[in-house]
Amino acid sequence: MAGVFIAFEGGEGAGKSTQSTLLAEALLRQDYRVVPIREPGSTPLGDYLRNYLIGDLPVSDIAELLMFEASRAELVAERIRPELETGAVVICDRFAGSTIAYQGYGRGLDLEKIDLLNNLATDGLYPDMTILLDIDPAIGLERVNNRLFQLALPMGDAPDRFEEETMAFHERVRRGFLRQAERNLDTWKRIDANHSIDAVAAAIWAVVNPLLPSQDLRLETG
Amino acid sequence: MAGVFIAFEGGEGAGKSTQSTLLAEALLRQDYRVVPIREPGSTPLGDYLRNYLIGDLPVSDIAELLMFEASRAELVAERIRPELETGAVVICDRFAGSTIAYQGYGRGLDLEKIDLLNNLATDGLYPDMTILLDIDPAIGLERVNNRLFQLALPMGDAPDRFEEETMAFHERVRRGFLRQAERNLDTWKRIDANHSIDAVAAAIWAVVNPLLPSQDLRLETG
Repeated sequence: MAGVFIAFEGGEGAGKSTQSTLLAEALLRQDYRVVPIREPGSTPLGDYLRNYLIGDLPVSDIAELLMFEASRAELVAERIRPELETGAVVICDRFAGSTIAYQGYGRGLDLEKIDLLNNLATDGLYPDMTILLDIDPAIGLERVNNRLFQLALPMGDAPDRFEEETMAFHERVRRGFLRQAERNLDTWKRIDANHSIDAVAAAIWAVVNPLLPSQDLRLETG
Repeated sequence: MAGVFIAFEGGEGAGKSTQSTLLAEALLRQDYRVVPIREPGSTPLGDYLRNYLIGDLPVSDIAELLMFEASRAELVAERIRPELETGAVVICDRFAGSTIAYQGYGRGLDLEKIDLLNNLATDGLYPDMTILLDIDPAIGLERVNNRLFQLALPMGDAPDRFEEETMAFHERVRRGFLRQAERNLDTWKRIDANHSIDAVAAAIWAVVNPLLPSQDLRLETG
């Protein structure tokens, strides 16, 4: 693949949206072609599935898992793989690691089955680098709650079905992310998200910078 | 399980809706508690996914497969298993066999992966009897086309993404159904659907009747 595939992972309120946006902006300033993506979503099908998942209509654990994988399959086939083939930097807000953490560690679904589904949905395409924004769930959820009261912020949103889960659930999710980072030291990087936005952004840049090819990925006009 | 689980399978225009309705009516007249179900659908999630699948928005083959399985997982967990546990006769218009025939034989997706997904979505719950309404696709699709011109019929509908597939696709789907029937002689029954509605209904009744428990499945008021 000519491009670079970077994923952000982490619990609620870890700063994924903020930091992935800042990274995209920094790369754009250096004339890289950047494709920002969020999961689930970023395709007509993904947006359609996301609308159901963020609502409060019923969905069983297995059906929820399969919907996330359907969204991912569509995203990889229609957006991520074609963009990487043409040399873009794809920045994904959540990817397969979230399914392992939330549906596996959080909901307790079988980890081997999730691996099989992730492999099926991604057709074996995984990020070159996954940045885990690690934060104590108590702090992260407090950030989310503060955000909900500040509707002027563009990211202001109603709490979704995960934000409403118990603290024990979010502790398991965090453990799920940390385990993945420990087991994939070559492609995962844990960053302490309990610092200022600027400090976290600097830590992310230090990790991402060595991955970037020099001129050949930049815009023709760059 | 106290109940009986019957699935109808077959290509376009084989008469599944008509025959599953006739069977449900016949069972109701004998005071069985009958739960008619169609796939995908019959749950809030299933109806939501069905709406996307019958439309013309894009969906990759793998995502389509995962959506059918998500609908199935929800249906088994929320409707089929609970109804069977309380002794109902569940009549399903399409089930896991359609995924093998359409996504496997039709679209050419890996049959082993489909088996894994079917097992995951159904949690191992398969019909006691699958009735394959077998018909030459040329005849079945002609029936569908005639139906589309007779909008007074309640089943009149716009052609969906499968009805618009090539004849070669529908020939592969038929082969997929026939292979399953040959390999599961104990639970699948092939019925020639190129006969009158009454003749096919009689053939179905002859197959289903021996499966039915005597009194204990019937309504208290029966």
